Amino acid sequence: MARRTEFFRRYDSSSGIQELMVDLDLALSGGKKMYMLGGGNPGRIPQMEDFFRAEMETLMADSDRFERALGIYDHPGGNVPFRSAVASLLRSDCGWDIGPENIALTQGSQNAFFLLMNLLGGKTEDGAQANIVFPMSPEYIGYEDVGIQAGTLKSFLPRVTLLDDARFKYEIDFQGLRIDESTGAVCVSRPCNPTGNNISDEQIQKLYDICSDQNVPLIIDAAYGLPFPGIVFDDSKPFYKPECIVILSLSKLGLPGLRTGIVVAPPDIVEKIEKLNSIFNLSCGGMGPALTRRSMESGELLQKCRDLLLPHYEKRRDLAVNMLISGLADKGLRIHESGGAFFLWLWFDAPLSTTELYRKLKESGVIVVPGKYYFPGLAEDFDHRDRCIRLSFSQDLDTIEKGIEILVDVANRELEKL
Amino acid sequence: MARRTEFFRRYDSSSGIQELMVDLDLALSGGKKMYMLGGGNPGRIPQMEDFFRAEMETLMADSDRFERALGIYDHPGGNVPFRSAVASLLRSDCGWDIGPENIALTQGSQNAFFLLMNLLGGKTEDGAQANIVFPMSPEYIGYEDVGIQAGTLKSFLPRVTLLDDARFKYEIDFQGLRIDESTGAVCVSRPCNPTGNNISDEQIQKLYDICSDQNVPLIIDAAYGLPFPGIVFDDSKPFYKPECIVILSLSKLGLPGLRTGIVVAPPDIVEKIEKLNSIFNLSCGGMGPALTRRSMESGELLQKCRDLLLPHYEKRRDLAVNMLISGLADKGLRIHESGGAFFLWLWFDAPLSTTELYRKLKESGVIVVPGKYYFPGLAEDFDHRDRCIRLSFSQDLDTIEKGIEILVDVANRELEKL
Repeated sequence: MARRTEFFRRYDSSSGIQELMVDLDLALSGGKKMYMLGGGNPGRIPQMEDFFRAEMETLMADSDRFERALGIYDHPGGNVPFRSAVASLLRSDCGWDIGPENIALTQGSQNAFFLLMNLLGGKTEDGAQANIVFPMSPEYIGYEDVGIQAGTLKSFLPRVTLLDDARFKYEIDFQGLRIDESTGAVCVSRPCNPTGNNISDEQIQKLYDICSDQNVPLIIDAAYGLPFPGIVFDDSKPFYKPECIVILSLSKLGLPGLRTGIVVAPPDIVEKIEKLNSIFNLSCGGMGPALTRRSMESGELLQKCRDLLLPHYEKRRDLAVNMLISGLADKGLRIHESGGAFFLWLWFDAPLSTTELYRKLKESGVIVVPGKYYFPGLAEDFDHRDRCIRLSFSQDLDTIEKGIEILVDVANRELEKL
Repeated sequence: MARRTEFFRRYDSSSGIQELMVDLDLALSGGKKMYMLGGGNPGRIPQMEDFFRAEMETLMADSDRFERALGIYDHPGGNVPFRSAVASLLRSDCGWDIGPENIALTQGSQNAFFLLMNLLGGKTEDGAQANIVFPMSPEYIGYEDVGIQAGTLKSFLPRVTLLDDARFKYEIDFQGLRIDESTGAVCVSRPCNPTGNNISDEQIQKLYDICSDQNVPLIIDAAYGLPFPGIVFDDSKPFYKPECIVILSLSKLGLPGLRTGIVVAPPDIVEKIEKLNSIFNLSCGGMGPALTRRSMESGELLQKCRDLLLPHYEKRRDLAVNMLISGLADKGLRIHESGGAFFLWLWFDAPLSTTELYRKLKESGVIVVPGKYYFPGLAEDFDHRDRCIRLSFSQDLDTIEKGIEILVDVANRELEKL
C-alpha cells in the first residue's frame, strides 16, 4: 500500500474549494454571529415547506406508495413513472420534443456532471484528449474537479459589456471561442452560478449551431432554471434541441436532501447514464420521485415555483441590489445583470483584492465567496479573477439586510484606502 | 465527438450482468406469472414497514427535523449526528474502538465500493498496477465493473469442503493466496453474496494478519451482516480492526430507496470519502440518516433487526433448504452452508450447465441467477462456474414454495437426462 494509485493522487491535494469550505466551517462554528451570504443552499420558504409536508402526508396515505419508495430499488435510470411525468411536463410546458426515453435520473445533478464529463472528456482511445469547453468564464466551481483526468477543462474569456445603473453583462466572445475536434462537450450553466447570467436566447442558439456543426454535445446546466425551479427574472426561454443535454434538479426548489438530478438527453446518453448508475450506485434514490410525482403530473409543482419560489427570490434580489447600488455604485462597484439563480456577482472595478476583502468581511461577520474559485479551466490572465465576489441572497431578509450593511461599510473602508 | 474517451469505451460494451438484467426485465414484463427467486431486493416485512412508517411520523412531529432532512445539504461525509450515533452503536454493541471520525456515509454501499476500489486499485503513480484481491471466489457480482481501469481484480480459487447433509463450504485456500506488493486492497463480503458464506472468525483473523503484515487494507462488505441488518444465522462475530474498512448499509434492513451506505474506516480514508463525495455528489442524502437516527441511538433499530428481520429470513431459509434437500439431495445437489444473507448457493455436482438450467427455469416461470456471474477477477478454470445458481429467499413464503417446487421438478428432469 506504499504506492498510490493515480486516482488517489488525483484527489490527494486539497482543492481550492475544499480549503474554502474548511475556512467557512471554522468561521461558522465559532461563537460569533455570522451573516451567511456565501452558500448554495436554497432558502427556507415556509409555504413551500408546508407544501412538501402535505405531499408527504398524501404519499403516506396512498396505499403502499410510501413503503415502496423506501423499500424497493428503483430502476437504475430512475423511477419509471416519474421519468414519464417529467417528460410530459417538459413536452407540455416547454414544447420540447421528448419522451421518457430522453430522461434519466442521477443522485443529484452534481453526479450527472461527474458521469457526463468523464464520458465526454478525458483521454481518448487514440491517445488524444477530449476537452470540456466552457465558452465563457466565470463558471460553476463544482465543475473543477469532476474529471478523473485533470486538465481537460478549457474556458474562454467573456466579452464584458458595461450597462447603465452600475450593471454589466458577460457575453460569449464568439471571435475567441474555439470548438473543434479536440472538444468533447461544451457546457454552460444557465442561469449561471456564480453570476446569475442568462446567456441570451440568440447567443445560446448560436452556440448550439456551432456545436451541432462540429457534432459536439451542448450541455446546459439548468439547476436554477426553467421550467423548475424556474428562478429566472428575465424573459429568456428554456433551451433544448435534439443534440442538447439539459440537466435539471429538485435541489434548488427546496429538496437538496433528496439528491435528485434529472438528465434530459438523447436516448444513447440516457442509456449510458442508466448503465453507469447501475455500476456505480445500483439505483437512484426513491424519495425525490415519490414525493414530487403527483405535483409534477398535476402542474402544481410548477405553479408553486411560480407563485412562491420566484417571488421569494425576486424580493431578496431587489433588496440586495438596491442596497448595493446605493451604497457602493459611486465607488466603482458593478453588479452583473441578474437574470436568475440566487446569487449576485459583484465586480469591484478598482485595484482591490477580493481575496483580501473576503478575509475582512469574515472578520466583520459576513461570509461571501471570493470570485477566484469560479474560473475552472481558464488559462488566461483576467483581472476579474480577484476583483469579484459571489453573494447569495437565498437567506432570510434580516440576514441579507444586515450582511449587506456590513459589506457596504467594509468595502467602502477598503476602497477608500486605495 | 467522433473520438470516444477511454472512460466511454470502458463502459461501452454491455456487461454480463446488464445482459442478465435486460433478460430478467423482459421475462418479468411478459404476461406470465413468474416466481422471482433472483433479486437482491430485501423482503417486505409488514412489521418493519410499520416501524419505518411510525418513525416517519415521529420525524414529522419533531419540530422542523423533517424540513431540514429535505431542505438542507448534509455534510459531504454524511449527517454529523447520525455518524456519531452509528459510531456509538458500533462501540457499544460490537466493542469496536472507533469514533465519529471513523464513519463516512455514501449514497449506498455500492458507491462506497466505487470510491474505495478506485482509490486503492488501478494504475499506480509509478506505472505499475494495484490489484483488488478477492481471496476466494465466488464473490459479489457488483464488484466486477466498479474499477475505472479494467483488469485490476484478482480472485483466488477456494478450498471446497464437503459437509454432511448435502452441504458444503468454501474456505480461503491460504496456500494459494497471494497478497503482495501488487495488492492495493483485499475484499470479502461477509456474509457472502452470493453464497451466504460466513468466513470463519479464525480465517478472517488470519486474513487480517496477512493484510496487516503487508500493509494492505482489508475491506469487509457487511451489507447483510452484523450488527445491522444482522442477517446472520450462525455464531460468527462481526470483525473490525484499526486497519480494516467495514462497509455497512441501510438497504438490506428495508431501506434501499434511501441509498445510505456507511463506511467504517481509518480517519484518512474517511476524509478521502468526504472529499470524493463533495466532488462527485456535493453531499449525501438526508432522509436515511433522519429516519433512522433516533432508533439507532435508542437501540430499537437493532432490536427490530433481531426480533423481526432475522426470524423472517431464517424461516424462509429453512423452508427453502428443506425443500431443496428433500427434492434434490439424492441427485447430486449440494447447498452451501448458509451462514447469512438471503441467498442460497446451489451446486449441482453433475455435468449440468446452470446457464442452460436458468433458461429452462425461466420458461417454467422461475427466475434465479446463473452462477457464472459471480466470479469477478477469477482467471482459473473452475467447474463451479457453470454448475451453480444463486437463489434468493427474500420473497413471500408462497413464492418461495411454488418457485422451489418448480425448480425441483425442472432440475430433476434435467438431471435425469444426463
